[in-house]
Amino acid sequence: MYFASDNWAGASEPIMNALMRHKDGYEPAYGDGPICESIEQRFQEIFETDCSVFVVGTGTAANALALSALTGPAGTVFCHKEAHIRVDECGAPEFLTSGARMWGLEGRHGKLSREALQTGFQEVPHGVVHHGQPSAVSLTQATEVGTLYSVEEITQLSAQAKDNGLAVHMDGARFANALVTLGVTPAEMTWKAGVDVLSFGATKNGAWCAEAVVFFNKDYAKDFIYRRKRAGQLFSKMRFAAAQFEGYFENDHWLDNARHSNAMAARLVKGLEAMDHTRIAWPTGSNEVFAIVPKQAAQKATAAGAVFYDWPSFGLAPEECPGEGESLLRLVCSFSTTQAEVDQFLDCLK
Amino acid sequence: MYFASDNWAGASEPIMNALMRHKDGYEPAYGDGPICESIEQRFQEIFETDCSVFVVGTGTAANALALSALTGPAGTVFCHKEAHIRVDECGAPEFLTSGARMWGLEGRHGKLSREALQTGFQEVPHGVVHHGQPSAVSLTQATEVGTLYSVEEITQLSAQAKDNGLAVHMDGARFANALVTLGVTPAEMTWKAGVDVLSFGATKNGAWCAEAVVFFNKDYAKDFIYRRKRAGQLFSKMRFAAAQFEGYFENDHWLDNARHSNAMAARLVKGLEAMDHTRIAWPTGSNEVFAIVPKQAAQKATAAGAVFYDWPSFGLAPEECPGEGESLLRLVCSFSTTQAEVDQFLDCLK
Amino acid sequence: MYFASDNWAGASEPIMNALMRHKDGYEPAYGDGPICESIEQRFQEIFETDCSVFVVGTGTAANALALSALTGPAGTVFCHKEAHIRVDECGAPEFLTSGARMWGLEGRHGKLSREALQTGFQEVPHGVVHHGQPSAVSLTQATEVGTLYSVEEITQLSAQAKDNGLAVHMDGARFANALVTLGVTPAEMTWKAGVDVLSFGATKNGAWCAEAVVFFNKDYAKDFIYRRKRAGQLFSKMRFAAAQFEGYFENDHWLDNARHSNAMAARLVKGLEAMDHTRIAWPTGSNEVFAIVPKQAAQKATAAGAVFYDWPSFGLAPEECPGEGESLLRLVCSFSTTQAEVDQFLDCLK
Amino acid sequence: MYFASDNWAGASEPIMNALMRHKDGYEPAYGDGPICESIEQRFQEIFETDCSVFVVGTGTAANALALSALTGPAGTVFCHKEAHIRVDECGAPEFLTSGARMWGLEGRHGKLSREALQTGFQEVPHGVVHHGQPSAVSLTQATEVGTLYSVEEITQLSAQAKDNGLAVHMDGARFANALVTLGVTPAEMTWKAGVDVLSFGATKNGAWCAEAVVFFNKDYAKDFIYRRKRAGQLFSKMRFAAAQFEGYFENDHWLDNARHSNAMAARLVKGLEAMDHTRIAWPTGSNEVFAIVPKQAAQKATAAGAVFYDWPSFGLAPEECPGEGESLLRLVCSFSTTQAEVDQFLDCLK
Repeated sequence: MYFASDNWAGASEPIMNALMRHKDGYEPAYGDGPICESIEQRFQEIFETDCSVFVVGTGTAANALALSALTGPAGTVFCHKEAHIRVDECGAPEFLTSGARMWGLEGRHGKLSREALQTGFQEVPHGVVHHGQPSAVSLTQATEVGTLYSVEEITQLSAQAKDNGLAVHMDGARFANALVTLGVTPAEMTWKAGVDVLSFGATKNGAWCAEAVVFFNKDYAKDFIYRRKRAGQLFSKMRFAAAQFEGYFENDHWLDNARHSNAMAARLVKGLEAMDHTRIAWPTGSNEVFAIVPKQAAQKATAAGAVFYDWPSFGLAPEECPGEGESLLRLVCSFSTTQAEVDQFLDCLK
Repeated sequence: MYFASDNWAGASEPIMNALMRHKDGYEPAYGDGPICESIEQRFQEIFETDCSVFVVGTGTAANALALSALTGPAGTVFCHKEAHIRVDECGAPEFLTSGARMWGLEGRHGKLSREALQTGFQEVPHGVVHHGQPSAVSLTQATEVGTLYSVEEITQLSAQAKDNGLAVHMDGARFANALVTLGVTPAEMTWKAGVDVLSFGATKNGAWCAEAVVFFNKDYAKDFIYRRKRAGQLFSKMRFAAAQFEGYFENDHWLDNARHSNAMAARLVKGLEAMDHTRIAWPTGSNEVFAIVPKQAAQKATAAGAVFYDWPSFGLAPEECPGEGESLLRLVCSFSTTQAEVDQFLDCLK
Repeated sequence: MYFASDNWAGASEPIMNALMRHKDGYEPAYGDGPICESIEQRFQEIFETDCSVFVVGTGTAANALALSALTGPAGTVFCHKEAHIRVDECGAPEFLTSGARMWGLEGRHGKLSREALQTGFQEVPHGVVHHGQPSAVSLTQATEVGTLYSVEEITQLSAQAKDNGLAVHMDGARFANALVTLGVTPAEMTWKAGVDVLSFGATKNGAWCAEAVVFFNKDYAKDFIYRRKRAGQLFSKMRFAAAQFEGYFENDHWLDNARHSNAMAARLVKGLEAMDHTRIAWPTGSNEVFAIVPKQAAQKATAAGAVFYDWPSFGLAPEECPGEGESLLRLVCSFSTTQAEVDQFLDCLK
Repeated sequence: MYFASDNWAGASEPIMNALMRHKDGYEPAYGDGPICESIEQRFQEIFETDCSVFVVGTGTAANALALSALTGPAGTVFCHKEAHIRVDECGAPEFLTSGARMWGLEGRHGKLSREALQTGFQEVPHGVVHHGQPSAVSLTQATEVGTLYSVEEITQLSAQAKDNGLAVHMDGARFANALVTLGVTPAEMTWKAGVDVLSFGATKNGAWCAEAVVFFNKDYAKDFIYRRKRAGQLFSKMRFAAAQFEGYFENDHWLDNARHSNAMAARLVKGLEAMDHTRIAWPTGSNEVFAIVPKQAAQKATAAGAVFYDWPSFGLAPEECPGEGESLLRLVCSFSTTQAEVDQFLDCLK
């Protein structure tokens, strides 16, 4: 009963098979060989556009390096105040951009609102040397708290960013989970909606270590080979990453994995809603469930071997906060979560 | 006939087996689980000391982050002018140290000499604000051109560094290759000889992507978890790296791989020395061979499918330089190089 | 009628006299001569302690470099969300600290509250690698909006910071203005109240270009000569800065200047309060006045040659905000503001 | 008898007069007022072109920030191995460029040669990700050892840089001294010869603290206001710097100062050449003299109150090195050096 995070899981079968397939033989180092080239083509097919793709080792590197390509000196990146780039990446975005600011903005359920963005643009306007340069807007899809932007919302926020002369970045650590829920194409959820650069994550969805920075606007990719190498993110045996993506995309394995973890989350929700003493804190569209549960029930589950995180409740609306004697739990499902695990966990809470 | 580099090879069997073994089940993310802890213990056993070990994704990251832990503001790192950190890492050491200088020094066959180091210490002495702070000496073992420092040499250069108040870093991208040639213990080649921090490479010797920063002097490791994460080098599914190290160390697999690639290199040397029109440019003690070969013979080999790099000859002594009609080749063997490949290549040159 | 900012004024007489006095003759460059040494002694006398003093060129440099000495990798500095370091220094603190975050916290009238600080400590706790390292608390005295911390408040917030293992920085761009209002000693307002490092500003109070970083806790000063030089802040003819400080401190000139500009601000307040249609937005204790004034009156003053800035009102309490047809003005007095200017301005508003 | 450095002198009369002239009254802060604008126009007149001018506080800041505008990620700047930017700026260029490398090249008498530059271009060619990006060539005029590039040499080296796709920077800390010796116009010595960006120094030639980054190629100036402010180099009372430049340029004061210090150096040379036991180490064209003098004579001069620096002799040709019992002295003259001082010093050596 592991619901701590989707990155507690290992690697899925097709990923390992692809690695096995490519373990022998020689391939030019540093991504210069045919396996890596074919991966870029796969991305181009999947996203239906001539994008530039750069594999890196972690989601933090993907985000921070992507943003470094969007920000000049003294840049400001507008994001939700709970965004991973602002809160959970140990200052990597600030460090790898040589000091850009992640400007946290308000917004219900982890989503940037039009109003909050407008406030940000007023706080850090163009052309005021003391305030630095507004540079980019970063959206997280699915968000840190499991919610989703609709394609319309992405389109509107992107347009607002563009109207203000800013680039648009999407943190897609859980890109596939959002995609299958919305039922749209990768293109629709990104460049067709105005996204310039995407951090495309595969690790949380079944790979070992496979993340990519995808530039739909190739102008921003100009110096990126240097940015990646300079940050120690250019793997010599790059094919180990390429192989993972090969397995990931094969037969829509990535979409299957995402559908599975989303389905497990939905099963959790259904079970939790059916109980009297538990409730869903807010509805999500991905593989993350946030539930308010009696402390006692939570402790019982823990004692039975369930693993999950208590979630901090500062900044939440009153109805989303746990009451006296309650806990707010984050429950994350992965490709390897089983129905049996879910059901056993729900039993523990009863 | 692939002699371009050892990182053109894939992953060896025991590495893949270990990955397979750990692909299922759950493990705390970010290295906090038992698999990762047991790897640190393995390092401690192998190095016979209570070292701190931090896994990162690339050798460039290992070097640059290790150096960042050794250098304060305006630091200077003394190294050979052909050192990987100065020439081949795209400014990553400068970037990730926030601007330390890699101070290149002369030295025959890729090795720092006592005299060159003394010159460096005079050029950037302590306490002169205009010159910045002398911080560390970095040695590469095996060197960029395949030669080795003896344990005595490491001990002497380290003492010279320490006498001058500097830390000692070893770039061990080909650590195992040097170790088996010298026939000493890992402890003897590192901390017993005065090394404070080691970049321990496994990738070139059979792993996919497994490098570690090993602190023998733990004072320097104080903030390192933040340095690693801030650089985007903390893998969420860290066990994929731990598993590689598990396979790497199992049954001395790492030493077997190194012995094999060294033996293939020795076979190349023997064959080249036996020919009238070819010669070894300088003797090496690792898996790299530098040979002077008639251009025509080199072209013949290329035509037959051999892959290798021509090596630039600026800075070389006259007797090491190719003459008219000759090329200086770098030939690198790996765990997957076969006798057949070597012999076929030698045949081509005849 | 110039109330735009205190840095629109030039240099006061004693400052220029001191510069004149030292314009001839030779003095070791880079601050190594007797004039500069004597200035450090003056600081030590004034602050009644053995502090280390480093002259730099701007308040932004003073703040950013001071913070760089307090923050390790992935550092977080807690400050008011309207703090100069977070809003008005173009990312210099982020840049010169190699990526530390200025963590903005709430607080009435530009002042950090105990509660807000506690929230910050919860948001970025110690020891969580994803969040980075909490490093320092920065207080601005006088604040950006002209208010003051009492010595008791500084003492309490410093203690709270120290209890959490953090260093305390004070941005004293308008240090003298606060000092003379509180009627305390420089020691009481700083190190006796727990401040580790002070950015001591003289520029806004009558100097041309004279700022100093004052370390009461000298441990933090260890590498500072390198930090200053590496940021291009070590003047060769340092005596031009030392001379300014000489004139600044002579016969308590600095306190006189501050008393004068504060008195001019008080005169403004008195005049504004006496009018029916204007009001003070919030009381301040320095040389800055924030007033709510009918737009028409403000325009009349502008037409008559008055210069001032409209102040943004986002984040203010309703009673502090201008109503329809009103403007919120910031009016700053300096050493060179005259009674006649103040009275003329008040007349314009009538 | 002060020959230690030209920055041991104070400020010359016209500089102080200009400061006096502008000490009163109000002027928009941060360089936005008419005094600062008029200075940019003066630069444009003097350089006969529409250049962009940014005042900063130190030569180190000017160089480092200028280079930051010329280098993208992982940039390499080619310079003489004794260049100030590589040796004497405490890593500021590396720091403020976020890690660019100052690639030191050989060359007699502090001057880059065509051959050395070619070698540099081979060592760090375009398009090799491991080596980083070649970005700029930096020339120092006058050089660190007092020699000069002719306009033809600047033109040729610039062309070589441009042919290789690189920008050209000139470190003009002693620009005026070179200019008056060559007898050319500022335009001829800079943009007409291919220089893109100039660090224009006034401090060593009679100002207190006045340096400017002058962009002849305005494309590079795009983000420079942010670079300057982010480095803490935007003075609030910018007019104190503008005033210095006003005094500096008035009635060709800057050229007079340079002619004077050069003449004093020439007088030194003449006197030294006339003595049997002393000799000039190499001829210079500026205000710096390098002389080989018997240790005893040097000590006698020191005892008599003369101040100068012994110069290190590593890297020098044999004929330039002091012999047994001799010292290599650097003797720098400034605007305030008098004939009496020179003659008294020469007497001491006799």
